[in-house]
Amino acid sequence: MISKNKLKELSVYKQQKHCKEAGVFVVEGVKMCHEAMAAKAPVRVVCATKLWLEQHPNLPTNAEVYEVEQDNLSRLSHMTTPNEVWMLVERDLPAIPEGQSLVLALDRLQDPGNLGTIIRTADWFGVRRIVCSPDSVSCFNPKVVQSTMGSLFRTSVSYTDLHDYLNSCGKPVFGALLDGQSIWSPHTPLQLPAEGAVLVVGNESRGISPEVQECITHRVSIPNVGGTAESLNASVACAILMAQLIHG
Amino acid sequence: MISKNKLKELSVYKQQKHCKEAGVFVVEGVKMCHEAMAAKAPVRVVCATKLWLEQHPNLPTNAEVYEVEQDNLSRLSHMTTPNEVWMLVERDLPAIPEGQSLVLALDRLQDPGNLGTIIRTADWFGVRRIVCSPDSVSCFNPKVVQSTMGSLFRTSVSYTDLHDYLNSCGKPVFGALLDGQSIWSPHTPLQLPAEGAVLVVGNESRGISPEVQECITHRVSIPNVGGTAESLNASVACAILMAQLIHG
Repeated sequence: MISKNKLKELSVYKQQKHCKEAGVFVVEGVKMCHEAMAAKAPVRVVCATKLWLEQHPNLPTNAEVYEVEQDNLSRLSHMTTPNEVWMLVERDLPAIPEGQSLVLALDRLQDPGNLGTIIRTADWFGVRRIVCSPDSVSCFNPKVVQSTMGSLFRTSVSYTDLHDYLNSCGKPVFGALLDGQSIWSPHTPLQLPAEGAVLVVGNESRGISPEVQECITHRVSIPNVGGTAESLNASVACAILMAQLIHG
Repeated sequence: MISKNKLKELSVYKQQKHCKEAGVFVVEGVKMCHEAMAAKAPVRVVCATKLWLEQHPNLPTNAEVYEVEQDNLSRLSHMTTPNEVWMLVERDLPAIPEGQSLVLALDRLQDPGNLGTIIRTADWFGVRRIVCSPDSVSCFNPKVVQSTMGSLFRTSVSYTDLHDYLNSCGKPVFGALLDGQSIWSPHTPLQLPAEGAVLVVGNESRGISPEVQECITHRVSIPNVGGTAESLNASVACAILMAQLIHG
């Protein structure tokens, strides 16, 4: 059984800044922890109920393992109803093989649920490279991690200056902009070029920044019908554009 | 200025059951309250800061109007940072003209963010009819209302037995199922039939119930690439299917 001191020591990882300093992130619940182990993610600490530990005799050999009561899980967990197991995983995740020749670039995305959903959708379509501007929400934010449903472990998310990245990537750059050309234009429907492409999606309310817009070679938009709605949710727009690029 | 008693009386509407009993729902913040008034929604109560009231001299004539301090707004609000104005609106919203001949049917959808995003996406594509099973999350749930970004006032959301509805609607019924035919099949790409259609999307983890599946005439699916991801977020799947039906 875990000691009170150890529990107190681990409870600091409820705060993102402590996770960042230690180069780790929190993974919670039966499903997500299963995904972390399946991906051979570097698990540093496992806290789990007696039952879960009995069901999982082959834990990563380097991990510290503690049996905890359900009540104590609440002291570590971000969830309202903690689910059997809590892990601390190193941020240095195993490399992911290349997938589609499409790369996603996210400019100043702020909502954790949106980033999680975008990572999950990218995984669905075999898009393995996601490049975010440094001021985007962290992919290790607990809400992002949980909403990826495991897809975080099957994609490669990195943070870098997008202007520099896009200027040097050598690929066509598609950007989702309200005044872009319809992706369903009969003349030039959106299709993934043979050499691949980068798709840029911007901030939930402010869109793509002017500096990043300079790098866009193809301004595209999802036409609306009736003209009453003002915008689409960023993760929805990103999904429709990815689907069209890959299957259109 | 609002009285302490009135503030206490109105604070019960933080609880959904009181809203339901009174046939009202809460709308909050500058943007959403603007949308409610633009849609001529039946506003029963307005609580707003002095500044907001000065900027909005033409409030609905039947509404009770109270000036409140920012601190007092927190006592009414579901938001961590209340935004100038809070309204109580009657659930009996004005009728919405018909839009696309596509109707959405949602079976046991549970997540408020998903329903809100689906309503917003439907509005974007001109889909005005959304029919939910009675055990789906309420469209008057505060998280749903806020995440529609105003689209709640431009769509018609109703709750009814889906088996009965689908059996009597006289339209082809498309259902999103993991074993359905690819929507990008080269032989039969997904297209909206001339007579219109209903698109059914199911529960986030359990999908479409067996009783509702009986009514489906076209089982469709969004193919994945690489086969690692298990599923798409319900609002993302719904968006890709709507986009394809309307523009494919």
